[in-house]
Amino acid sequence: MAAPESVLAAIRNVVGPKGWVDDPAEVAPHLVEERGRYQGTCDAVVRPASTDEVAAVVRLCAEAGVPVVPQGGNTGLVGGGVPDGGIVLCLARMNRIRDLDALNHAMTVEAGCVLADIQTAAAEAGTLFPLSLGAEGSCQIGGNLSTNAGGVAVLRYGNARDLVLGLEVVLPDGRVWDGLRALRKDNTGYDLKHLFIGAEGTLGVITAAVLKLFPLPHGQATAMAAAADPDAVLALFGRAHDACGDQLTAFEMIPRIALDFGLRHLPGVVDPFARVHAHYALVELTSPRADEPLGPALETVLTGALEDGIIADAVIATSEAQAGALWRIREAIPEAQKHEGGSIKHDVSVPTSRVPEFIARATALVEAAIPGVRVVPFGHLGDGNVHFNLSQPEATDTDAFLDRWEDVNRIVHDLVTEMDGSFSAEHGIGRLKRGEMVRYKSAVEMDLMRTVKAALDPKGIMNPGKVVGG
Amino acid sequence: MAAPESVLAAIRNVVGPKGWVDDPAEVAPHLVEERGRYQGTCDAVVRPASTDEVAAVVRLCAEAGVPVVPQGGNTGLVGGGVPDGGIVLCLARMNRIRDLDALNHAMTVEAGCVLADIQTAAAEAGTLFPLSLGAEGSCQIGGNLSTNAGGVAVLRYGNARDLVLGLEVVLPDGRVWDGLRALRKDNTGYDLKHLFIGAEGTLGVITAAVLKLFPLPHGQATAMAAAADPDAVLALFGRAHDACGDQLTAFEMIPRIALDFGLRHLPGVVDPFARVHAHYALVELTSPRADEPLGPALETVLTGALEDGIIADAVIATSEAQAGALWRIREAIPEAQKHEGGSIKHDVSVPTSRVPEFIARATALVEAAIPGVRVVPFGHLGDGNVHFNLSQPEATDTDAFLDRWEDVNRIVHDLVTEMDGSFSAEHGIGRLKRGEMVRYKSAVEMDLMRTVKAALDPKGIMNPGKVVGG
Repeated sequence: MAAPESVLAAIRNVVGPKGWVDDPAEVAPHLVEERGRYQGTCDAVVRPASTDEVAAVVRLCAEAGVPVVPQGGNTGLVGGGVPDGGIVLCLARMNRIRDLDALNHAMTVEAGCVLADIQTAAAEAGTLFPLSLGAEGSCQIGGNLSTNAGGVAVLRYGNARDLVLGLEVVLPDGRVWDGLRALRKDNTGYDLKHLFIGAEGTLGVITAAVLKLFPLPHGQATAMAAAADPDAVLALFGRAHDACGDQLTAFEMIPRIALDFGLRHLPGVVDPFARVHAHYALVELTSPRADEPLGPALETVLTGALEDGIIADAVIATSEAQAGALWRIREAIPEAQKHEGGSIKHDVSVPTSRVPEFIARATALVEAAIPGVRVVPFGHLGDGNVHFNLSQPEATDTDAFLDRWEDVNRIVHDLVTEMDGSFSAEHGIGRLKRGEMVRYKSAVEMDLMRTVKAALDPKGIMNPGKVVGG
Repeated sequence: MAAPESVLAAIRNVVGPKGWVDDPAEVAPHLVEERGRYQGTCDAVVRPASTDEVAAVVRLCAEAGVPVVPQGGNTGLVGGGVPDGGIVLCLARMNRIRDLDALNHAMTVEAGCVLADIQTAAAEAGTLFPLSLGAEGSCQIGGNLSTNAGGVAVLRYGNARDLVLGLEVVLPDGRVWDGLRALRKDNTGYDLKHLFIGAEGTLGVITAAVLKLFPLPHGQATAMAAAADPDAVLALFGRAHDACGDQLTAFEMIPRIALDFGLRHLPGVVDPFARVHAHYALVELTSPRADEPLGPALETVLTGALEDGIIADAVIATSEAQAGALWRIREAIPEAQKHEGGSIKHDVSVPTSRVPEFIARATALVEAAIPGVRVVPFGHLGDGNVHFNLSQPEATDTDAFLDRWEDVNRIVHDLVTEMDGSFSAEHGIGRLKRGEMVRYKSAVEMDLMRTVKAALDPKGIMNPGKVVGG
């Protein structure tokens, strides 16, 4: 049902011509998402310039029952930003860095700031904002917080949720909650910011946030180890974690098949070892001190693991270029897979100690379901978050393979749930995984979420049809 | 209004004789709290042995509208566990450690486990559970999580909230939410555990939790520096933080007056310096590696600070005994203050970079309010959490001084709020600071909290009169 013209006119009046987009060609990108699964509709794309404008727009929508679909960089992977009527509320114009207090290790940013710009501003002030993911050149921090983005640095720095000290939110009725504070300790009632972080825009619109900053890394040591199986890789992780603790910044698992794909298709991917191994671990330590003996620390761990037969070989990068070459092996995997036909993906996690078991059991199940399927399990072993990706059997029909996506997801998600894992480790629920919510979440948990949703957004205007909303 | 006899009989039937306490002598300790401010009343103290028993008891209370007041070790400092009728639900018998997965760095504990016992169990498995506070020999983890306890290790490891992967909660209607999971990445809907952590028992009863474990520290370096003022101490903090990052485990500020009190009254407190200085900083680094060059790292920071005139002197402990002696200076302060008459206390925080400004302004204000008052500001500078304690003027009436407690709190809390700080950094709201909530929190924030409370506990039976409940 289209929004009443009077409401749209009032909204246009609030944001002015700069904040109003209704030319179909300009609206079009806001109606789709990266994987081309959904095609949305909306009455307009609204681009407010300030929190006050956001509040006024939401108030008008609330009074008229017009759905509001917040959007940041629109890089989400579960259709969470795809509108189904109503207005798209795009935060892109709200891209000011309001404050940066290096001594307090905090910066206040508006929701439309691009993540890469935040990283740059922090670095220029001699600090680190560690959230880092593939889409950082275009994703916006409001979206990162609304989806509790993960990324490559979770092992050391945590998810987006762990990087926030305060929020400013426009509530579903248009009131503004100013929760912007830069405190490390504050026990004055319920910690409301956690309601909105990870809520995917269904409980309110995040308009600004106070982010935590960290010391910049100045020392780094990178290595790759070769092992026989995921159990060995996991054992190495245990040792690296216990020995290096907070300096352990990355621990990625790479199966041989992924390295083969890279060697086969992409320049710059080089096998660092003479012999072929079944599995590899990419390990990186960082430190704020340039003179921190990270290389020796890594060497101690790897030598011990070699002597104890946990790994078969290891190489420590002796230059930034060599470290880059090791990382290239890992970063090339998604690209390399594209050259091998269709790929069915999962975004799952299990308790870290159960990753080898998961890989073994899931592999057996999918191989039974699709004979000849090529399993490519790689990723953030340290977080228990495995990209359990399947490349199609060689010389088969790609479409027929991809038609099996939901079947295979069902098999893998059933297993993940049985193993007390998550069917959406990073990407969220959006529209794509609502069926999984109903299937896998307990009735009590669903009821709790619906209770929270109904309490904060009784009219159901905030991003309807996403996460839990009806 | 007393609970109906039939309800009490039904509750007694659920928990059996071992779980039922109505002998006034045994009930009495559950009606008071550490600072002797409140005297509560209740119909009985109920001590369930299992989550199912907790659920059954809460269900009976919900049906009859009988208040439920959860209690752990009853070590809280804001009257949060003092009952005003209804039943006290004591978790002490639920003290099993259900699981410990060292490789996954997670342990599952029941709410009644004593914190010190959890620390010991973790250490015996070769890991660290870092939550550590003065009451750890008797406080229970359920209470720690319900109050989002802080303690001495927040600078490095965060608050209780940061140490939880999952929760099991009995909701106000008696249903059990099983949110026990041990995942680092899980974006499947709203992160419900954060509702209950820090809610002080007003939204449900935490019955179990999955806690995060960390590598045990095997290397340690402790130092004390002498400086002219809080600005210098803050500058040293900045340098230590940026140079040592995650290895910085403690950074405590100590004013001269606090050292004088210790020297005057307590054995084992020794001035590590030959000259008198105005302020001191206690700095500690730890590492999982015994061979980590922490001493040299600390020395580099301190030498640089000396050369730049930020500090006047420094001593690095060369033995565990010497480190212990430095810590004794800090740990002795509360005890030493007791020998100097009445003490008016605050539990406040401000942004770390504003601590010196806060101390200066607050000192001026309280000295104007109570001429001769002796200000003793000490504590977790790295968290922005200053124990802004005031010892009475020498040779004045203690009671008359303590009668000024609320006046002085008002002055200090007004200032803290103006400086975007917190009037309750660690201890929570309970009953004691409800007035401050109304005075200092925005109408929108109070309404949001009441909305959440009403949604989860529509009958208002969970710990009524605490935090925000009417």
